[in-house]
Amino acid sequence: MVGYDAEKDQYLKRLKRIEGQVRGIAGMIEDDRYCIDVLTQVSAVTRALQGVAVGLMDEHLKHCVSSAMEHGGDEADEKLAEAMGAIKLLLKS
Amino acid sequence: MVGYDAEKDQYLKRLKRIEGQVRGIAGMIEDDRYCIDVLTQVSAVTRALQGVAVGLMDEHLKHCVSSAMEHGGDEADEKLAEAMGAIKLLLKS
Amino acid sequence: MVGYDAEKDQYLKRLKRIEGQVRGIAGMIEDDRYCIDVLTQVSAVTRALQGVAVGLMDEHLKHCVSSAMEHGGDEADEKLAEAMGAIKLLLKS
Amino acid sequence: MVGYDAEKDQYLKRLKRIEGQVRGIAGMIEDDRYCIDVLTQVSAVTRALQGVAVGLMDEHLKHCVSSAMEHGGDEADEKLAEAMGAIKLLLKS
Repeated sequence: MVGYDAEKDQYLKRLKRIEGQVRGIAGMIEDDRYCIDVLTQVSAVTRALQGVAVGLMDEHLKHCVSSAMEHGGDEADEKLAEAMGAIKLLLKS
Repeated sequence: MVGYDAEKDQYLKRLKRIEGQVRGIAGMIEDDRYCIDVLTQVSAVTRALQGVAVGLMDEHLKHCVSSAMEHGGDEADEKLAEAMGAIKLLLKS
Repeated sequence: MVGYDAEKDQYLKRLKRIEGQVRGIAGMIEDDRYCIDVLTQVSAVTRALQGVAVGLMDEHLKHCVSSAMEHGGDEADEKLAEAMGAIKLLLKS
Repeated sequence: MVGYDAEKDQYLKRLKRIEGQVRGIAGMIEDDRYCIDVLTQVSAVTRALQGVAVGLMDEHLKHCVSSAMEHGGDEADEKLAEAMGAIKLLLKS
């Protein structure tokens, strides 16, 4: 079972909205909209995507990592190292 | 004329690809793909969007702000303040 | 016991170096050094600080959160929520 | 003349404070303070440094880049490219 299982519909809805926003930015560019207005919208979509990332990480820690840790051992260590790798990736993106 | 005018097609292509990637992330969630794989993809799309933002800012400074500055006066100051506002927004997103 | 206990000396050394770098930036400003050179150095120190943050978070997850999770219960949930809060803070800083 | 000339004292004061904060973080680690408290403080100092970077970039655009642009030519282009490079560096740090 994946960590985001209980919130699957909510994530699909958020991604659907983000997909529409990206299409909206393309529309702004087609319409020659002012650079700063396009940039502001790109920034809003970036934040929306980061919100999705933070939410997924939250679910992952609460469910997958948490459950591995209850069992302990090597798998727990690996899950933590893997999660830390993803956190570093988010911090760089 | 907008700053990104000469690169319009290139931006539309990049946004089309990003739109497809966002749809791909939704597909991963529908398929119950592993959280860390989804997160890695979200991070890649975030970076792609930030690349678009940096590119648009670059064109904006090179064309719009630059042209305002050649004329000088209040408009130049306003353009710079506006660009700085967008840079701060990018730094926070 | 704190999560960074085994690496205490290493963190103190890194922070000592960062402190010196901050003092170095002040010196650059006193000497009227070129803005872009100062900015480049500020950016390097910011990255060094984020490296410290990532390291501390790593130790915290590996030791404090991990140990709370072995015991399970409310404390494990609280530790995870708290760590997630700190991750969000890092993502915004 | 450097872009931050008129605000030199203000920047020196901010950097002095940041230097003290970095020393304070080292003190927290010496005192075995809780990881999350240390992290919160590291995050605050990171934000303070980024505030300095944004301020310096602002002054640089307003004074150095702006003045190069009034003269136009190759130097204006170079200053803009250089500023854009620094903005990308900030976005990555």
